[in-house]
Amino acid sequence: MVDAAGKTFKPEMERCIDDCTRMHQIALTASGHALRHGGEENTNHIIRVLSDCVEMCQTAANFMLRGSPNHGRVCGVTAEICREVARECGKFEDEPMQKVVEAATACAESCEAMA
Amino acid sequence: MVDAAGKTFKPEMERCIDDCTRMHQIALTASGHALRHGGEENTNHIIRVLSDCVEMCQTAANFMLRGSPNHGRVCGVTAEICREVARECGKFEDEPMQKVVEAATACAESCEAMA
Amino acid sequence: MVDAAGKTFKPEMERCIDDCTRMHQIALTASGHALRHGGEENTNHIIRVLSDCVEMCQTAANFMLRGSPNHGRVCGVTAEICREVARECGKFEDEPMQKVVEAATACAESCEAMA
Amino acid sequence: MVDAAGKTFKPEMERCIDDCTRMHQIALTASGHALRHGGEENTNHIIRVLSDCVEMCQTAANFMLRGSPNHGRVCGVTAEICREVARECGKFEDEPMQKVVEAATACAESCEAMA
Repeated sequence: MVDAAGKTFKPEMERCIDDCTRMHQIALTASGHALRHGGEENTNHIIRVLSDCVEMCQTAANFMLRGSPNHGRVCGVTAEICREVARECGKFEDEPMQKVVEAATACAESCEAMA
Repeated sequence: MVDAAGKTFKPEMERCIDDCTRMHQIALTASGHALRHGGEENTNHIIRVLSDCVEMCQTAANFMLRGSPNHGRVCGVTAEICREVARECGKFEDEPMQKVVEAATACAESCEAMA
Repeated sequence: MVDAAGKTFKPEMERCIDDCTRMHQIALTASGHALRHGGEENTNHIIRVLSDCVEMCQTAANFMLRGSPNHGRVCGVTAEICREVARECGKFEDEPMQKVVEAATACAESCEAMA
Repeated sequence: MVDAAGKTFKPEMERCIDDCTRMHQIALTASGHALRHGGEENTNHIIRVLSDCVEMCQTAANFMLRGSPNHGRVCGVTAEICREVARECGKFEDEPMQKVVEAATACAESCEAMA
């Protein structure tokens, strides 16, 4: 990705922006899936976990895109929240949730590298 | 793009989500560029125009990712704001701003198709 | 409310910023309530309607706080979404949902005045 | 503040939600002020610092309004960013910036109490 000023991001930051953007998109679509298919007692919990992830991934990507020196702290919190998503969604065995787990694990790893 | 529930988005919506996501990223990086290189009297105006675009593109993408039936109205406003970005950034002749114009025009077109 | 530059907002805009901020807060807390207490078939629908409202009210307030000339279009869409919230949440008879209806109606009215 | 489900937030959380909401609003209006009145070399820096604050205060308030158990981590980062705002805006002697410093200090304190 080349930014509007013709500058390139460092590869590890570019990867992290991409992973956060993808996780944000997947967590938003997965919330709808959980609402429709989750067992009653689990739905509220998973939606809450995914909502945190939707918002933090968006925030982390925005900090990096703005070139903020504070992105490391934000990525640190985002990594922890992605790990929680991977752990909680990993309790479901259906294939859509397995895709969430993969994306969350990848995003946690690249956020940890930026923290 | 396949969502977390294994469903695919319709091609025109997938394109619009991609264009909004890209425009959001470019407008954020372009704000930094405008701050550093814009003439004093123009900077405030361009930053304001880009800030509107950053927020509306993010909102439009989120409405589509959630599968909201209200996405058309949101895309309609987003298209108008992207047209304004193309018009105002088109007054600058440097290459970074020309990339903003291209992205804004593409985003306006795909948002108009969804409105 | 006096802004950071010592300027005051016009009274109808100040009211609209306040109503959008309050509706944003109420819709976020009401989502949690709907998740826990809604009948199964209705929950997905109400959460979706409230999610749109959470995001548009935040966006509308931000446009006004930035002093954007585009706030009218954004307030127009926000008003329509608040009317939908009032209509859909009005189908429930419990007292928490009646508070959502009141806040949504007030927000729709002040957004319509700005549109 | 009573939420849509008739529950009250604990006083220290209610105060933190209010302080984050107020800081978000003040930082957004202060960005416009800085764009118009800041010296050239400082503008970019202050806008960047305020942009981080706008986004983190909104995120922290949303985490608390959703009742997320992750709010403490988010409040911790928000407190650090508010301290930075107080420090950087404290270098200006005009009265609008002094109001930003006051709001940022109050917000940092209530976020630290939640972290």
